[in-house]
Amino acid sequence: MTERIDVGLIGATGTVGRQLARQLRNHPWFRLAQVAASSASAGLAFGAAVVDDIDDAESAFGSELLDLPLREPADIWEPKLLLSALPSAVAGPLEIELAERGHLVVSNASSHRMDPDVPLIIPELNPDHLELVDRQRWRGGLVTNPNCSVVGLAVALAPLHLAFGLDAVSVSTLQALSGAGRPGPSAGAMVDNVLPHIAGEEEKLACEPQKILGTLAGSTVTPAAFRVSAHTHRVPVSHGHLQAVSVRLRQRAEPDAVAAVLAGFKGALGDTRLPSAPAKVIELLADDNRPQPRLDRDRGDGMTVSIGRVRRCEVFDVKFTLLVHNLVRGAAGAALLNAELCRSRELTEQVGAR
Amino acid sequence: MTERIDVGLIGATGTVGRQLARQLRNHPWFRLAQVAASSASAGLAFGAAVVDDIDDAESAFGSELLDLPLREPADIWEPKLLLSALPSAVAGPLEIELAERGHLVVSNASSHRMDPDVPLIIPELNPDHLELVDRQRWRGGLVTNPNCSVVGLAVALAPLHLAFGLDAVSVSTLQALSGAGRPGPSAGAMVDNVLPHIAGEEEKLACEPQKILGTLAGSTVTPAAFRVSAHTHRVPVSHGHLQAVSVRLRQRAEPDAVAAVLAGFKGALGDTRLPSAPAKVIELLADDNRPQPRLDRDRGDGMTVSIGRVRRCEVFDVKFTLLVHNLVRGAAGAALLNAELCRSRELTEQVGAR
Amino acid sequence: MTERIDVGLIGATGTVGRQLARQLRNHPWFRLAQVAASSASAGLAFGAAVVDDIDDAESAFGSELLDLPLREPADIWEPKLLLSALPSAVAGPLEIELAERGHLVVSNASSHRMDPDVPLIIPELNPDHLELVDRQRWRGGLVTNPNCSVVGLAVALAPLHLAFGLDAVSVSTLQALSGAGRPGPSAGAMVDNVLPHIAGEEEKLACEPQKILGTLAGSTVTPAAFRVSAHTHRVPVSHGHLQAVSVRLRQRAEPDAVAAVLAGFKGALGDTRLPSAPAKVIELLADDNRPQPRLDRDRGDGMTVSIGRVRRCEVFDVKFTLLVHNLVRGAAGAALLNAELCRSRELTEQVGAR
Amino acid sequence: MTERIDVGLIGATGTVGRQLARQLRNHPWFRLAQVAASSASAGLAFGAAVVDDIDDAESAFGSELLDLPLREPADIWEPKLLLSALPSAVAGPLEIELAERGHLVVSNASSHRMDPDVPLIIPELNPDHLELVDRQRWRGGLVTNPNCSVVGLAVALAPLHLAFGLDAVSVSTLQALSGAGRPGPSAGAMVDNVLPHIAGEEEKLACEPQKILGTLAGSTVTPAAFRVSAHTHRVPVSHGHLQAVSVRLRQRAEPDAVAAVLAGFKGALGDTRLPSAPAKVIELLADDNRPQPRLDRDRGDGMTVSIGRVRRCEVFDVKFTLLVHNLVRGAAGAALLNAELCRSRELTEQVGAR
Repeated sequence: MTERIDVGLIGATGTVGRQLARQLRNHPWFRLAQVAASSASAGLAFGAAVVDDIDDAESAFGSELLDLPLREPADIWEPKLLLSALPSAVAGPLEIELAERGHLVVSNASSHRMDPDVPLIIPELNPDHLELVDRQRWRGGLVTNPNCSVVGLAVALAPLHLAFGLDAVSVSTLQALSGAGRPGPSAGAMVDNVLPHIAGEEEKLACEPQKILGTLAGSTVTPAAFRVSAHTHRVPVSHGHLQAVSVRLRQRAEPDAVAAVLAGFKGALGDTRLPSAPAKVIELLADDNRPQPRLDRDRGDGMTVSIGRVRRCEVFDVKFTLLVHNLVRGAAGAALLNAELCRSRELTEQVGAR
Repeated sequence: MTERIDVGLIGATGTVGRQLARQLRNHPWFRLAQVAASSASAGLAFGAAVVDDIDDAESAFGSELLDLPLREPADIWEPKLLLSALPSAVAGPLEIELAERGHLVVSNASSHRMDPDVPLIIPELNPDHLELVDRQRWRGGLVTNPNCSVVGLAVALAPLHLAFGLDAVSVSTLQALSGAGRPGPSAGAMVDNVLPHIAGEEEKLACEPQKILGTLAGSTVTPAAFRVSAHTHRVPVSHGHLQAVSVRLRQRAEPDAVAAVLAGFKGALGDTRLPSAPAKVIELLADDNRPQPRLDRDRGDGMTVSIGRVRRCEVFDVKFTLLVHNLVRGAAGAALLNAELCRSRELTEQVGAR
Repeated sequence: MTERIDVGLIGATGTVGRQLARQLRNHPWFRLAQVAASSASAGLAFGAAVVDDIDDAESAFGSELLDLPLREPADIWEPKLLLSALPSAVAGPLEIELAERGHLVVSNASSHRMDPDVPLIIPELNPDHLELVDRQRWRGGLVTNPNCSVVGLAVALAPLHLAFGLDAVSVSTLQALSGAGRPGPSAGAMVDNVLPHIAGEEEKLACEPQKILGTLAGSTVTPAAFRVSAHTHRVPVSHGHLQAVSVRLRQRAEPDAVAAVLAGFKGALGDTRLPSAPAKVIELLADDNRPQPRLDRDRGDGMTVSIGRVRRCEVFDVKFTLLVHNLVRGAAGAALLNAELCRSRELTEQVGAR
Repeated sequence: MTERIDVGLIGATGTVGRQLARQLRNHPWFRLAQVAASSASAGLAFGAAVVDDIDDAESAFGSELLDLPLREPADIWEPKLLLSALPSAVAGPLEIELAERGHLVVSNASSHRMDPDVPLIIPELNPDHLELVDRQRWRGGLVTNPNCSVVGLAVALAPLHLAFGLDAVSVSTLQALSGAGRPGPSAGAMVDNVLPHIAGEEEKLACEPQKILGTLAGSTVTPAAFRVSAHTHRVPVSHGHLQAVSVRLRQRAEPDAVAAVLAGFKGALGDTRLPSAPAKVIELLADDNRPQPRLDRDRGDGMTVSIGRVRRCEVFDVKFTLLVHNLVRGAAGAALLNAELCRSRELTEQVGAR
């Protein structure tokens, strides 16, 4: 992979878009060539639109990006590969339109995740689902990554599903503020407080993991047959979603065996080397008081899911705590890793050619 | 009940002890006559031992209390009724000794909660368990209240157990700092962070609710036959434990029916009027984003358990969120209400006489 | 004052407006009869506009208020007395228009505070400035209260100016989130952080105190001749502005003498009893680590300014720390106290009659 | 400087000691050879004493250090150069004893900072003061760095003192939690709160800057002749002390001229290259809302002091806001930079030889 190819970034000024812009800086395979944001900031330079962070801007984004003009998302794009960090409200029809125009759209938006012909991918778990793109009805293609909480959960569930079979999962999350985008909850609402509800989040946790761990058969994915029930909470943490997980397995297993399977998980990428893939997909922590958001979110540059406290569950079989960096592994890094997977499979060359 | 009787308070300078002292001020049935703390502060006046809060002390505790000398817990006590807010590490043998000497000890400590002949009481749930005191082997008696998280959970579970029968409970807590006592976690540990572990807490949630909701038969309580699995977390909130609860019922029920049962719960006190009992044991909140610790912990002067988000559970039958003021309903108020129940049943006169 | 008179509230759904609504509930002199908010919510009932707090609404505001329809601010008002909690951007022309129509407008907005013919009043400091209203050019009248930080500072400076004369004041503030209105800074911006700037705040601290402590001469106020320099910061505290103050006096004084003057301050109200006036305008705290926002903001129901740490200043004469409840003493309570002063002076009967 | 020399670290398990251990890992000039902590942990391995952070320990400190046994501070030390991160309470006599035994002690403790024959050094400001070591009465030597807040203030004041002369300084600090060491304030004390007092801090700000900016004449330092008055506060921030500074200059200057002098400050190191010295001693930020602790503390790997909001002061001449990473530039990095200065001046070879 000796040559960098151009990519476009849609929704560049939101929380996830900015993080993608940071991670695309000096990326070995991709060069950020065009950026778009909502109409409100179209016409501005990227640097002007993130002006309240201007002191950081150059070191965070690089000086070249600061001068790039923000385009309208529906404009004509030059790069074949487009990364989408759009809010779901606007991503729906636009991503389809761009795929129809021949682009390969790699999206973090929730709009099309559950569409039958759209793969929902975590490269270390279900890279084979990428074949769905070949059967899509558009000249281009559309690939999605899961919700930020789902990424962490699915990574932890995958080896257990493989080893023991999953029957039911109960998960309770303590989610960070950056998961709410900009501006997110007000500081006044979060002082001496936590919030018991995140709109739409529990529904995603209840269905996305089964599609990711499902089986590709012909032109569709048969979801894995386990149930997920979620309670979601917002806590005053900047980054890092903590999740308390209880699991009922199809084949009984002791906590030690479960821990060994988690610790030994290699993922499904085999020899494929992707620049943003961490050395360890999962890191198992020994200390009883870990993982913690501030101490553990940056493991593997934010791409490693930390798991601790694997122990017997009085109701199900086993329970544990996991932590996922919602903004990296759960969003920008998830989309970027998917884009890398697409390039490694030469999808970026194939789409649009058909 | 026209006359106030004297009570003693052991462990008066800790977080729960201070709260008891505040609530005993101007109490209609009890007068705080003697106080004890650990040997380190014995000999000091109560006011001198809480000196870092001295500007508040007079309005919080009343000027009389400030001059009361702190005694050793094992000293000879004059009041027959003793409230114990001792750390469990020291409560164990001492509470037994005091009961042997003829005192009625109403304790918040965990040491004896699960002893077969010691009742574990929430007055609105299982006041009949108080009969166990008659069968205790001491001249005096010993009555306990549950762990602070357990109080909230048991209050919510009681009407469901009564109406539908409980089979299994999965609970995940977001617990406030005051539940950790003084000094509790350092501010540095909690900045931009939550903690995934509270020592000993999950074990209490796994066994105390069944004793409370169990059946008194002869000289022992047969615990209710349901299982509880808990995940406990510490969050940067001053007071108020939030709990995400999923419940499997023996007799299937729709969320609406469950909500109706929770909202209609009257408790088991009947005509007994206790000064610290709230008008509503449970308050059901309609808003999707409630209960919240800062907004809801003080309902019913901190004695009402707030419940919201009653909805279908994808794995069990129903799930909901509850909030309990850990320091009031979960600790000081729990002990005080038990003391009031004891007095209303004239136990304070009976013990010691035998 | 046996009869309650009707008042209107403009800007009723903002942070200050809601607080005024709470404080007007069961007010002995005033009955909240009409409410207005921005056009966006006009037509809604007050209760519908504060719907995210609906569980609190009845106990906070009373059920009557919840049904009151929100009017446009420029509509015809029935009450002669109007309280304005409008954002300054819209308060400017509208308050003048309402005064011209014959209303007595008691405003918390900054728009007209420094107008020569508009009094800027803290009842305990400069009630005589109310005479300016007689000379106003409108049928009605316009009375303002200071910026939330200025209220605390002016209360502390008044007795010192009286006793020793002020020459220069250097103040550094740590301001609470509620001072920023709704929604205020995002929680993400405040995690593990403080902000070094509050737009427009330092300018107000530099000029409002001198007008308040100035001398009424004929139809204008000659400002007091001292300089104020301010540094303002936002901190993650819900309510309560803390201020570090250094003062150079015209007549040298020892810290003890300064503390005695602060502690002995009675204010200028004399025999006038206003319902919202606290028993103590200033409370001097002995402990070195006080005042603190959470522990001290509610003294005198939020109307008492707490002062501590009076000590020698190495550069000026004396320095100390003060705390003011920004939402009560600094805003809603400030306006309400001014309205009470107006009624006690029978201004509510006089204006409009001319 | 081709060879690493061995150093010892006293007080290795406290907040500053740990940070020194982190920064000594892979240091080009120094190798951490021996470590000591208080008697309580003496005998343990370093790794065992920091066991609650064990998951981080290897990546933070390196595996070699984890096995190093913790010695008693008064034991015989092999390295000539000792870094001291002792609490001041124990540093006093021990550091003298070690200097007498022939060690060069580079200390972060406050005990001897103001001793006439002990230099108080910030290498970019007063490296010449190091000559005091030649005149010390011990076989070895003792060099100190300032208090964490003083470091930031002195760095900002130095170029102004040079260019315009300082007359008076008023400073108000918002200090981070790590400045309080371990455990520091409890989380319960800091929820929805800030603290108005830090014991001993204002006194250090009032005298240390003048010694640093003073003139070495013979065997003593004549302190610079300006006064400093400080207000210090603790805020819920992990790292980074923010300071609001007002300055009266001897020679009047406009804010623009002051900003230019700050931005252009090169420091006094000239051609001396020290590994821990940042590229910029001061970084001037343009945005009105900067510096902020979370966004700016890590500039120059925590060794750059950020300054913003340079503007006219209504009472003095000019005012501005600065931020210093208290744990790096203000403590561990300060001591390490002093040790580097000592080695670059070959002091490590000279002491002990006399």
